Amino acid sequence: MRIAFQGVPGAYSELASRGLFGPAAKTLACETFEAVFEAVDGGHADRGILPIENSLAGSIHLNYDLLSQHRLHIVGETYLRVKHALLAPPGTAFKDIREVRSHPQALAQCSRFFAKNRKIKPVVWFDTAGAARDVASEALAGVAVLASEYAGKLYGLRALRKGVQNEKNNFTRFLAVSRKAVRPKPGPLKTSIAFSTRNETGALYRALGVFASRKIDLHKIESRPNPASPFEYWFYLDLAGNAAQANVRLALRELRVLALNFRLLGSYPAARIPKN
Amino acid sequence: MRIAFQGVPGAYSELASRGLFGPAAKTLACETFEAVFEAVDGGHADRGILPIENSLAGSIHLNYDLLSQHRLHIVGETYLRVKHALLAPPGTAFKDIREVRSHPQALAQCSRFFAKNRKIKPVVWFDTAGAARDVASEALAGVAVLASEYAGKLYGLRALRKGVQNEKNNFTRFLAVSRKAVRPKPGPLKTSIAFSTRNETGALYRALGVFASRKIDLHKIESRPNPASPFEYWFYLDLAGNAAQANVRLALRELRVLALNFRLLGSYPAARIPKN
Repeated sequence: MRIAFQGVPGAYSELASRGLFGPAAKTLACETFEAVFEAVDGGHADRGILPIENSLAGSIHLNYDLLSQHRLHIVGETYLRVKHALLAPPGTAFKDIREVRSHPQALAQCSRFFAKNRKIKPVVWFDTAGAARDVASEALAGVAVLASEYAGKLYGLRALRKGVQNEKNNFTRFLAVSRKAVRPKPGPLKTSIAFSTRNETGALYRALGVFASRKIDLHKIESRPNPASPFEYWFYLDLAGNAAQANVRLALRELRVLALNFRLLGSYPAARIPKN
Repeated sequence: MRIAFQGVPGAYSELASRGLFGPAAKTLACETFEAVFEAVDGGHADRGILPIENSLAGSIHLNYDLLSQHRLHIVGETYLRVKHALLAPPGTAFKDIREVRSHPQALAQCSRFFAKNRKIKPVVWFDTAGAARDVASEALAGVAVLASEYAGKLYGLRALRKGVQNEKNNFTRFLAVSRKAVRPKPGPLKTSIAFSTRNETGALYRALGVFASRKIDLHKIESRPNPASPFEYWFYLDLAGNAAQANVRLALRELRVLALNFRLLGSYPAARIPKN
């Protein structure tokens, strides 16, 4: 099994792929999200792993757009708690650190650390794992990075501080995608769909009625205006259950009649937000 | 009128504030979003301007969290089309450019430009306007930035290319916040609310019924699980109309009964997505 992810080895996406597929799965580093889709589309990878939403930053609409353009199937999900460690080459003591490199979002997520340690300068880098790789290979004195402990182990850096981020509850949800649909294992399932409605009063209310009347639980809903067509709204919806089970199948059949456009993105085992 | 924004002068947030309040309004540059809220809370600024959602990147949940923590009122909104220009010090020709600095998100949004111009190296900077300011002050040979044309004018850089981003339809929606509620001017209004429900089947459907039954249009809906309380969902909802008008007032009164928690974030003139 080969899993395509965006970033360099040690990226949070790769860590999520290990959480979902185990440490034995091979990974394929891709430069962009488009390249992840193309790797799976073209058969260079069996699965792709994509961040789809973060508890502080919100949904990544770009990946929803790519899901609509490429006809891949969602076959799994996982939640990753984002924990940044302060990593430095062996022999570096905390008091020697003058500069910390990371992605600007990671630096911002650790702003309290920099407010407390005024002598340490945050320096932006393309990604967290890339910063770890570069600092390890250059072994510059007094330079550390903010990245996952996993990236630190991969590049031989030591964790001088763990859990440096301001917010403990910072989760990213990742989706696994495949060229072919996979029959999900038994257990609680989730189904993801995308649909559009005309901009009419009550259109969403009527659409949700197909689920409420069948006692189908909703996990997520998000609307998105279509900038190209101001009288059309797209909705992303996650619901409890399998698209193959009778009540969900009937609800989706009814929704196809009400909606302007409809796409079944996949049914897959539901993941839990980790407790710690 | 003084408007607090996150970033350095020339930031897209400042550009949005000029769109909403005119070029005569004074601005106050803040390091973080928290600092924008504190500036308005503490009376150092009359308004704050905050990016709340982007058409490609999604909603900025962090700013919704800050809206809930600080009791400010939403008093306006505006949509800004994100257009990156390639800016360089006067005298620099396109063929001389070897390096382009910008925020990683801006660099990624212009990935096709870098794919076509392989000799030009993208280099990450903290923000787009900060890159413009630094390149202008250093006047390094062969170094350009990706930022707004507005940032270029502010720092005396020339636009060698305009609209460099891959996607033409890239909009950011900004909200204006105030310590005191402001009676909105006549015209189409929008009302933003946040509420939570118990994790019960049909809870959202029943909540939306209070609007559908009164023919109140919805503009946006987004759910967000509460990581601290897995059986509780928060919803952000924008609806057409003024919280002071009879049908909306009654709908919100009914929703307060159904919801676990409820917050009225504000009623304000509805903006349109610009055509070009």
